[in-house]
Amino acid sequence: MDKGVFVSAFSNGDVFVGETLGTAALILLGGGVCAAVTLKKSKAVNAGWLAITFGWGFAVLIAAYMSAPKSGAHLNPAVTIALAVKSGEWSQVPLYLGSQLLGAIIGAVLVWATYLGQFNANKEPTLGIFSTGPEIRNPVQNVITEVIGTFVLCFAILTIGTNSGLSQSGTGTLMVAFTVVGIGLSLGGPTGYAINPARDLGPRIAHALLPIPNKGGSDWSYAWIPVVGPILGGLAAGGLYNAIF
Amino acid sequence: MDKGVFVSAFSNGDVFVGETLGTAALILLGGGVCAAVTLKKSKAVNAGWLAITFGWGFAVLIAAYMSAPKSGAHLNPAVTIALAVKSGEWSQVPLYLGSQLLGAIIGAVLVWATYLGQFNANKEPTLGIFSTGPEIRNPVQNVITEVIGTFVLCFAILTIGTNSGLSQSGTGTLMVAFTVVGIGLSLGGPTGYAINPARDLGPRIAHALLPIPNKGGSDWSYAWIPVVGPILGGLAAGGLYNAIF
Amino acid sequence: MDKGVFVSAFSNGDVFVGETLGTAALILLGGGVCAAVTLKKSKAVNAGWLAITFGWGFAVLIAAYMSAPKSGAHLNPAVTIALAVKSGEWSQVPLYLGSQLLGAIIGAVLVWATYLGQFNANKEPTLGIFSTGPEIRNPVQNVITEVIGTFVLCFAILTIGTNSGLSQSGTGTLMVAFTVVGIGLSLGGPTGYAINPARDLGPRIAHALLPIPNKGGSDWSYAWIPVVGPILGGLAAGGLYNAIF
Amino acid sequence: MDKGVFVSAFSNGDVFVGETLGTAALILLGGGVCAAVTLKKSKAVNAGWLAITFGWGFAVLIAAYMSAPKSGAHLNPAVTIALAVKSGEWSQVPLYLGSQLLGAIIGAVLVWATYLGQFNANKEPTLGIFSTGPEIRNPVQNVITEVIGTFVLCFAILTIGTNSGLSQSGTGTLMVAFTVVGIGLSLGGPTGYAINPARDLGPRIAHALLPIPNKGGSDWSYAWIPVVGPILGGLAAGGLYNAIF
Repeated sequence: MDKGVFVSAFSNGDVFVGETLGTAALILLGGGVCAAVTLKKSKAVNAGWLAITFGWGFAVLIAAYMSAPKSGAHLNPAVTIALAVKSGEWSQVPLYLGSQLLGAIIGAVLVWATYLGQFNANKEPTLGIFSTGPEIRNPVQNVITEVIGTFVLCFAILTIGTNSGLSQSGTGTLMVAFTVVGIGLSLGGPTGYAINPARDLGPRIAHALLPIPNKGGSDWSYAWIPVVGPILGGLAAGGLYNAIF
Repeated sequence: MDKGVFVSAFSNGDVFVGETLGTAALILLGGGVCAAVTLKKSKAVNAGWLAITFGWGFAVLIAAYMSAPKSGAHLNPAVTIALAVKSGEWSQVPLYLGSQLLGAIIGAVLVWATYLGQFNANKEPTLGIFSTGPEIRNPVQNVITEVIGTFVLCFAILTIGTNSGLSQSGTGTLMVAFTVVGIGLSLGGPTGYAINPARDLGPRIAHALLPIPNKGGSDWSYAWIPVVGPILGGLAAGGLYNAIF
Repeated sequence: MDKGVFVSAFSNGDVFVGETLGTAALILLGGGVCAAVTLKKSKAVNAGWLAITFGWGFAVLIAAYMSAPKSGAHLNPAVTIALAVKSGEWSQVPLYLGSQLLGAIIGAVLVWATYLGQFNANKEPTLGIFSTGPEIRNPVQNVITEVIGTFVLCFAILTIGTNSGLSQSGTGTLMVAFTVVGIGLSLGGPTGYAINPARDLGPRIAHALLPIPNKGGSDWSYAWIPVVGPILGGLAAGGLYNAIF
Repeated sequence: MDKGVFVSAFSNGDVFVGETLGTAALILLGGGVCAAVTLKKSKAVNAGWLAITFGWGFAVLIAAYMSAPKSGAHLNPAVTIALAVKSGEWSQVPLYLGSQLLGAIIGAVLVWATYLGQFNANKEPTLGIFSTGPEIRNPVQNVITEVIGTFVLCFAILTIGTNSGLSQSGTGTLMVAFTVVGIGLSLGGPTGYAINPARDLGPRIAHALLPIPNKGGSDWSYAWIPVVGPILGGLAAGGLYNAIF
């Protein structure tokens, strides 16, 4: 999983398949744990924040092993951008980003299919299962929180990616997964740690389109923050990495 | 644990021993955590969904290391079927499936032996310790949920199995175990994630036979769903894997 | 950590140092999590069964890495016995067992030192911090539970120990640690999973001797069960391993 | 990550960058989980002790991978001192310690920035988010607890660091991270496990300086204990390691 050489490592077709499939799996599992903990008539209802953060971490683990052979398992526009800054090569970036967004929408639809009975009986706003929202709404503060969280994610991925022992033992993906658990536990409190524009925007689009009773609004006024914040965080991580290493 | 070559990799005798022993350990530990969290007079009573999901994950870890040298540690008819689709070789499939079902019944009996005092004092229906059941009963929806969960499991196993770093470091089994934790956290809410026909049917048979007071019915009308759903999921995972890779 | 060759692999002096130090660390950390969750005026009070089981698992992880270079990190008479059955060599067994018991007593004293202020203010029976006890007292049932739990532990260690990938990557110890978490979650409900004679008897002796106010009795009538059960489980695991492999 | 040769392995500039950056990340994530669990209007409020201990463990994981290539990832004066005792080489120790303290202050400021909205609405003493404090205030007992906890940490790091399999597979950092989770679960009850002078003193300085409403006092009378205790623990671990190995 030498993500540094993603530029020419994968064909366009493989990138499309790998990122669409992988991001769909990421959101199916990540959105799934939010559904599991939130929806009534779910065995996991009220399982708590630890369940959510480990659920997202293992979502990354599963999705990354699935897509790594095809596309290097970015699964996140911020990661793609950080790698582009590091390598100086941007030609496949639009393909990665488009595939990730498509995959995220598909993943959100699969969450709906998995919890179809629960959604059909739904009586409360469900946006929280799909997208993030702040506990205290303040654009500047919310952007700062997302920048910091995404910076940690992308900088960790860049340094983990250069550890040759992890590459050879195939365990780097596990360290990234635990990094995501850690970011959730530590930095997720204010905004719910989008730290990934596709993870937030794709499911928000799905939420707007899916026929869920009583689903409530899709909060489009907040939608730019979990896109802009993570992009800035990815840019900063790539830039600092190049400055230091 | 190169599961792709299971066809001729193990003798029939080894397959029988490995799958029976391994699936017995899987159900002893997986059913055990359900007993631990459910039964009164257990130190783990009400330990919650996170305990159940990690308990099942480590059940896979332990059982897979035990049985891998003998049979490749399928422990699940859906996994065997996905591998058969991938490899195109079906000759040992019936042996694998039969051994898994036998092991699952034995494992459920061992759960009963481990918690014998608690079961003897039982006053409530106990099927939930043995087999899965839906929160909202709807055959089509329940099958869909099981198909999706099993597809993720089998597709993850197929991709993890081709990661040569994981093979060499012996850590692929851990990734499969965490995959099972993740599926439980994210996709287990509606039906309790059987994702394994033997895991559900074997203990259901044991539940019907064991002399547990006040044990309640074995809900045979639901029994086909956690058999058919996972088989469809395994077929789909094997097919998509072949289409993509 | 090729435990199969422990017979002549370590000098008597190293065995003594490694097993005493390692078992002391195991009980300091394992007893420590019981103290942390049980005692008033502890930040971890009521942290729950998941905290206890992960605490014991990481206790194994830490203690095993500390003692492995000296003695192979058995830390448990049942493990030593299972390895002796496997290898047919018993000459160092008494030294291992004696060192483990001594280490366990020292570890329990260190728990007391760590939580000295809490123990000095103690007003309730504290045996549960030191030793195990059954939820339903029935010698035959309690022995069966301990036999099953220890069998799983020892059989898992034997199979994990023969995985050359885990040996080379140094990660076999982590798998044993997660095995212990899994046994705790799944099989610990009825008796508190001693699964280790030294882990139970050493701290029980310390409990009898330490000047803790209101500490209550040391329940010597139960003390033989978490010694005999685990020994039987270790014998059975070694025997079955030899029969199968 | 052969920490034993840190003496001449890294240039002064790299040590400064690595330790400052790494300790900042450690405190951002470690202090972050305390903020997440403590502050009102956080999605993780009341997530419990298990969330705190895993949060700190993954903080170590992330910070160590970030800083290891630059400075060997000590991130803790007690670890630096233990390694100096082991190697007998003290020339870079002041640089390590100064960088760690600076990084810890920066990390605490980043916690404040991440949770800015929550801190601005704060109505309660917040020192517990930044620094440790005892449940029962008794200097001798509190020092003993910190010595024992830090001894376990440093001795574990020294033995993990000599495991060549872990070095080659790049997974030693994960074992250290789980060691920190284990120490938190088992030994953190009485004092909150500083086990790191920079982790306690740096954020305490930041707490004294940051403009947080209703933040309460910084409890300087306790501040020497989580400095002196960990230093003694690091000295003892290095000394015992040299005596045994």
